[in-house]
Amino acid sequence: MALDRLKQLGHQVTSSSPPPHPFDPLSTLEIDAAVAIIRTEHNGSLKFNAVTLWEPRKVEMMAWLADPKAAPRPHRAADVVAIAPGGKVYDGIVDLTDRKLLQWKHVEGVQPLITMEDLNAVEALARKDPKIIEQCGIIGIPPEDMHKVYCDPWTIGYDERFGSDVRLQQALMYYRPNVDDCQYAYPLDFCPIYSPETKEFIHIDVPRVRRPISKAPPNNYDVQSIEKQGGYRDTVKPIHITQPEGVSFKVDGRVISWQNWNLHVGFNYREGIVLNNITFNDKGTIRPIFYRLSLAEMVVPYGNPEHPHHRKHAFDLGEYGGGYMTNSLSLGCDCKGVIHYMDADFVNAAGSSTTIKNAICIHEEDAGILFKHTDFRDDSVIVTRGLKLIISHIFTAANYEYCVYWIFHQDGTIQLDIKLTGILNTYAMNPGVNAHNHQHLFCLRIDANIDGPNNTIFQVDATRGPGEAMADYDGASSRTWDISNTNKLNPHSKKPVSYKLVSREVPTLLPRKGGLVWNRAGFARHAVHVTKYADDQLYPAGRHVPQTSGSPSPSPGLPTWISEASSANSSSNNSIENTDVVLWHTFGITHFPSPEDFPIMPAEPMSLLLRPRNFFDRNPTLDVKPSWARSPSQVAAGIGGACCGSGMDPGKKGDGVSRIV
Amino acid sequence: MALDRLKQLGHQVTSSSPPPHPFDPLSTLEIDAAVAIIRTEHNGSLKFNAVTLWEPRKVEMMAWLADPKAAPRPHRAADVVAIAPGGKVYDGIVDLTDRKLLQWKHVEGVQPLITMEDLNAVEALARKDPKIIEQCGIIGIPPEDMHKVYCDPWTIGYDERFGSDVRLQQALMYYRPNVDDCQYAYPLDFCPIYSPETKEFIHIDVPRVRRPISKAPPNNYDVQSIEKQGGYRDTVKPIHITQPEGVSFKVDGRVISWQNWNLHVGFNYREGIVLNNITFNDKGTIRPIFYRLSLAEMVVPYGNPEHPHHRKHAFDLGEYGGGYMTNSLSLGCDCKGVIHYMDADFVNAAGSSTTIKNAICIHEEDAGILFKHTDFRDDSVIVTRGLKLIISHIFTAANYEYCVYWIFHQDGTIQLDIKLTGILNTYAMNPGVNAHNHQHLFCLRIDANIDGPNNTIFQVDATRGPGEAMADYDGASSRTWDISNTNKLNPHSKKPVSYKLVSREVPTLLPRKGGLVWNRAGFARHAVHVTKYADDQLYPAGRHVPQTSGSPSPSPGLPTWISEASSANSSSNNSIENTDVVLWHTFGITHFPSPEDFPIMPAEPMSLLLRPRNFFDRNPTLDVKPSWARSPSQVAAGIGGACCGSGMDPGKKGDGVSRIV
Repeated sequence: MALDRLKQLGHQVTSSSPPPHPFDPLSTLEIDAAVAIIRTEHNGSLKFNAVTLWEPRKVEMMAWLADPKAAPRPHRAADVVAIAPGGKVYDGIVDLTDRKLLQWKHVEGVQPLITMEDLNAVEALARKDPKIIEQCGIIGIPPEDMHKVYCDPWTIGYDERFGSDVRLQQALMYYRPNVDDCQYAYPLDFCPIYSPETKEFIHIDVPRVRRPISKAPPNNYDVQSIEKQGGYRDTVKPIHITQPEGVSFKVDGRVISWQNWNLHVGFNYREGIVLNNITFNDKGTIRPIFYRLSLAEMVVPYGNPEHPHHRKHAFDLGEYGGGYMTNSLSLGCDCKGVIHYMDADFVNAAGSSTTIKNAICIHEEDAGILFKHTDFRDDSVIVTRGLKLIISHIFTAANYEYCVYWIFHQDGTIQLDIKLTGILNTYAMNPGVNAHNHQHLFCLRIDANIDGPNNTIFQVDATRGPGEAMADYDGASSRTWDISNTNKLNPHSKKPVSYKLVSREVPTLLPRKGGLVWNRAGFARHAVHVTKYADDQLYPAGRHVPQTSGSPSPSPGLPTWISEASSANSSSNNSIENTDVVLWHTFGITHFPSPEDFPIMPAEPMSLLLRPRNFFDRNPTLDVKPSWARSPSQVAAGIGGACCGSGMDPGKKGDGVSRIV
Repeated sequence: MALDRLKQLGHQVTSSSPPPHPFDPLSTLEIDAAVAIIRTEHNGSLKFNAVTLWEPRKVEMMAWLADPKAAPRPHRAADVVAIAPGGKVYDGIVDLTDRKLLQWKHVEGVQPLITMEDLNAVEALARKDPKIIEQCGIIGIPPEDMHKVYCDPWTIGYDERFGSDVRLQQALMYYRPNVDDCQYAYPLDFCPIYSPETKEFIHIDVPRVRRPISKAPPNNYDVQSIEKQGGYRDTVKPIHITQPEGVSFKVDGRVISWQNWNLHVGFNYREGIVLNNITFNDKGTIRPIFYRLSLAEMVVPYGNPEHPHHRKHAFDLGEYGGGYMTNSLSLGCDCKGVIHYMDADFVNAAGSSTTIKNAICIHEEDAGILFKHTDFRDDSVIVTRGLKLIISHIFTAANYEYCVYWIFHQDGTIQLDIKLTGILNTYAMNPGVNAHNHQHLFCLRIDANIDGPNNTIFQVDATRGPGEAMADYDGASSRTWDISNTNKLNPHSKKPVSYKLVSREVPTLLPRKGGLVWNRAGFARHAVHVTKYADDQLYPAGRHVPQTSGSPSPSPGLPTWISEASSANSSSNNSIENTDVVLWHTFGITHFPSPEDFPIMPAEPMSLLLRPRNFFDRNPTLDVKPSWARSPSQVAAGIGGACCGSGMDPGKKGDGVSRIV
């Protein structure tokens, strides 16, 4: 089978069908081929943890992007993580173009992320474990009810008693009176530790004061329960969104072009959506803006520092994978309108490729007023509506859902919206149940390419003139960061062409300095880090995140890279000025749970903007057809206005579909 | 004529048609009647500046709202501002129910706001003024081109040379090479001062270094110019938004009910939209939340403190009126979908009522995912989409447009979005043109009624446990404010029922302490002020804003009220704890102009939230029909999911309209 796929790959590469774009995620054929190539040399009983695109080295890729005909096409390559018997972790690189294994390295003292298969294996075993059955009995669950016991098996995070060498999961335990009840209303008070290597529970953390299982009635959101509680409201009338002429974007493989934007939509098991080579056609000139944008990491610390709760601080991307956890989306449910879906292909533990259908949604929405002006003298007016392109995916991290929307605007703005929904993580009280205060801190990785790779980051505070007191309110200085190309000045303002990061949801990492979360989540200690570009610096909390301790200092990822850069001898070129830099931005919210969040949370929105500043000569959307425009001379002449441009009649106002009630 | 209207009013009041709601803005009949009643006693040559609803005293109104059948119906009354010859300002109150003048008071040393009529009177006179013609000549505009000269006649703001007793306007001067050119590309360097009383220009401010008129080609956004520059893009396909079954809201007069919300939509010349008596039907219990919400004031200081630019700091609501400047909206242009419009009625200087058609837009939009959860074990899922209700108006303040959106969500959240668009204010350089850095600071007035009037405001900072260092980043503490009713605890969390103000765009007022803007814009010195409710405390920069100096301290409005409250003897009940309080919130942006903002600005968004916290027992939207739901038991039984509720078929997924491309 694997050899067949290898042959198919060969066929694919040599046939007339176009080769994959170098940024494309690995296809199922390529995943299977990578596994097959590894197996020709390492035919042990490997559990595959990840087989993903080993991204082209930037220097080669930039050359190819600049001149795809003359420059060598970057090879297709696979970045592989596998676990051999005994828990031995291997990092491998497979050159798929040359069909050879470039690297196969045993890495000690690390644990690759927990896959969905790892997660799904634990619950059935927990129900049969005598020690767990005993603990259930103590808090009021009889042995015959063990089928009502559930667990969300997180990675252990880090526990100093067990260290990093043994791969472990902590099983957050729950109960469902009935199969359709929401289990998060019934958390259990003990926490078994599971070893996937031995398939055994090696330890159970039990609190000194026991908390019997909650006797409260279920707090459910499922259809049957709502029907019983009075049913659904009948007061919501449908809103239909249609695009009779189709969409305004074009898809060529995974390259999207839309309203002067052009970009490649990638996806991997870890970050989910990855946007590459984002350019803007500025009156015929293709201007690069970002080489790569992604959510690179996140951490969710919970505000209870007592053992074993200190372990509850999920790195959802680095420990589980935003791609692996991604939802298969449903038409008209997750997104409305005319949708272009893309699938996501992964490897499973056995080394076969698997596919999540409709993992990425690409669609457009009306964006309200793009610009408007009325002259108060004569009511001459122009009003133009905007359109936005949204590239989204949704992933489920056990109890929570993260809805990630990369939004492109016609004016050159890129907006990242995240909606948090799903269910609060809970813990048993005596009596009752609570939800700890917690934070969701995301790390946005911005590999900038503002008119070329040599960029500089400037921090921008609005302050009074010299001699004035500084502001005294948090956020008062309207702090933003400019990603600037100082080699190119705007002809009008004489300022460097820039993109400005406007992000207002920037809480401090609350876990204490020197504590476990602070040590492990080095990227979350500051709102912004800037590093000089390096091909292998993709993951701000390190490549293998589970069971890192973060000590001794510096912790993996950003703190290590920055420490290395600053300790290098001064003659080395570690300047982050006017060079190829990456900006890492940590943002998020601090969540104080409240009853409104139960039993399922109304989506909590967050938003940040990357806005062009001094980048364009003028508003780049002036050629978007107005909904209505009437000039002073038309007003003076007593003639009607016009919606100009092909396909619209002069004098026609609005969209012709809206109506008055 | 006026007497006729008085008779009509009598007829209206006594006829069988329902009387106006006590919160309704004055109708044209009532405006005309108020003027007629004033004229019976004061038949001089009055220029009417404002005739607006004198809002019911809160104690009477609360009684009537609680029991409209038994409690006396608050009288209809008009709040009148008029200017008599000699510039004498009168504040009057007319009882329309009893048809009598309750108050007619000459107020000295104040100037009522500048109306659109005041604004529109100046330009034609400026073009004929010999001194202005002379100044135009100096910078390169010949006398025969005076028809190409334009002016935006602002209130003078405050100028110490002229004080507050004489009503004055400063004419910001511009030029248009052709009538359809954007004048803001051609600012003139001098500034005439105009007296509406004498219809004369009493002074001209001229810079020491003159700036000849810009010779740059026009930077236009009008249809003809764009057509000449290559025309409109043909790549935007229409997005149609339709509601075949109509809207989900009901309108009874000006009372809107929608998705458990109920509120009254008012409007006045100054604040624009005013929302009153906002309640939420919580499983059959009508719970009051806000007595009154409005944007009460704003200030736009420009970052050039040199005379006469220090006068450029518009209080757009208090000096011009967000209602007076409001746009008549166009179907399918300003809002899409099925729209309910409301008109706005005002008085003109002559004392007649006038109407702006379609001043308020009320419509709904799809709000994306309301909540979602997938169980990773079995892919059982629920996904429910949200709806939002948007009540909006747009006003044009000379060069700028402010689009104000009051957004109601099904989950109890109220969101205020403001979009800034229009054209930058410019000034002449030598050579060239620039736009000063500036701020837009809005004051949101929250008259809270969280389960009753006795509320308390708590400031909420997220910090580490005791002994930890404070955060070092602006905004790091995720500061919010809770508006709480401490007399009522949530049964689950045992915390006071609250609404949380979540606002992240909170820059400091940048003009220096003790300077003119700082003195005048007292409300903008702090992000939050809390006052004890008083009927007449509506306007945070004072009732009559033009030409206030703000000194001696305390300046009018909030600083005066707070100073009075704190200097009152300690036995008086000036506590702001657990009583009827008003929260005033100043928020906004600091705008560093850039070429992308020319010649017309892509809309810059701002947003804040009022979110229920510990207010509901649980997520109040669980009875919104899901787009798709499938329970664990259905998954186990191998049967399909359901979109339950009347009118939707089990097994039907999505909206039935979306499609794949």
